[in-house]
Amino acid sequence: MLLYSEADICGMDRRFRTNFMNSLLGFKPVNLLGTIDEQGSTNLAVFSGVVHLGADPPLIGVVFRPHTVSRHTLENIQKTRQFTVNQVNTQIIEPAHHSSAKYPRELSEFEVCGLDPHFISGFKAPFVRESRVRLGVEMVEIIPITHNNTSFLVGQIVLVEVDAELIRDDGFIDPEKAGSTAVAGLNHYYSGQLQKVLPYARPLPDGLKLAR
Amino acid sequence: MLLYSEADICGMDRRFRTNFMNSLLGFKPVNLLGTIDEQGSTNLAVFSGVVHLGADPPLIGVVFRPHTVSRHTLENIQKTRQFTVNQVNTQIIEPAHHSSAKYPRELSEFEVCGLDPHFISGFKAPFVRESRVRLGVEMVEIIPITHNNTSFLVGQIVLVEVDAELIRDDGFIDPEKAGSTAVAGLNHYYSGQLQKVLPYARPLPDGLKLAR
Repeated sequence: MLLYSEADICGMDRRFRTNFMNSLLGFKPVNLLGTIDEQGSTNLAVFSGVVHLGADPPLIGVVFRPHTVSRHTLENIQKTRQFTVNQVNTQIIEPAHHSSAKYPRELSEFEVCGLDPHFISGFKAPFVRESRVRLGVEMVEIIPITHNNTSFLVGQIVLVEVDAELIRDDGFIDPEKAGSTAVAGLNHYYSGQLQKVLPYARPLPDGLKLAR
Repeated sequence: MLLYSEADICGMDRRFRTNFMNSLLGFKPVNLLGTIDEQGSTNLAVFSGVVHLGADPPLIGVVFRPHTVSRHTLENIQKTRQFTVNQVNTQIIEPAHHSSAKYPRELSEFEVCGLDPHFISGFKAPFVRESRVRLGVEMVEIIPITHNNTSFLVGQIVLVEVDAELIRDDGFIDPEKAGSTAVAGLNHYYSGQLQKVLPYARPLPDGLKLAR
């Protein structure tokens, strides 16, 4: 094992450090966030910092990095208070990744990436037609994280559209069947292979330990 | 495609809703959080809500749900201001999952799950020896999310220990080689298979679109 101290981390070459830090947590979910501005221009950006916050009410959190192209997304959400979250599957890895290129505001990433905007009646923000699991989300609050100038957005899920064949009887949405992807680092995209399904964990009787 | 409105979501059977909501984002990272209390009792708990917040300074965020066993983890962090984050690999899926069982505070999940605590000089909180990527983290702040009574903890990475053979020359830590796992829903554990490595995305020349 190699041990890195805080000083070692600070002293890392910039590119090495970025790759290293971004791969420490392993696999991260990959989702496309769709927004629209008040002039009707759509925007699409890929995010690996979306996190489940709770099922009741149905909440998610999104990390917004400072000074990146994704600020178009945050600005649109601040104005319209709406966005969509669209799961990236193995069929759309390239266009999803390309949405991170820094395009001017007036150019829609839907257009340049070749993805189809899809609208649901009563909801302003655009969904991604090629995605098989897509959420309509309303902004609840934006929490500034002053330590590094990022923002943490809390959003409430108000619409869900899912390919019917992915939903099991118990409500589970099968990510392997959906071709869902995960990202590690900044640019390594993975599919998943089921290893184990485990029952709800209950304490063992007194004195027993889990068999290895 | 099936469309669920907010009313449909509210009306879901409780168990269906939990599974459904927890699988909407696809693959989530799985990490074991190690802590110690002031009496020296160690604690270990599995988390799927750890998120990268930034590389400089090296920050992560952790979502803490209300009223769960993981509160032992949060209470210990509030007292000692330290915790460890240990990647779960395919070799330790069962013991990692079992750490979510509700054991009393005086019983260490290291002991009942059969995982070895590992200490690094100068750092109080216990690491997991069976993990191949482990982080020592110091608490920066805890942000209450009032909308659903969860907490978002911001932590700074001060130690990293990684199996040397997993680190590439550019700093990337290979999750496939590490046997890293992802979770979907509450209890489906996956390994990852590399699909694509893509270069840093730059805008295409004017008028060009990405080929499909």
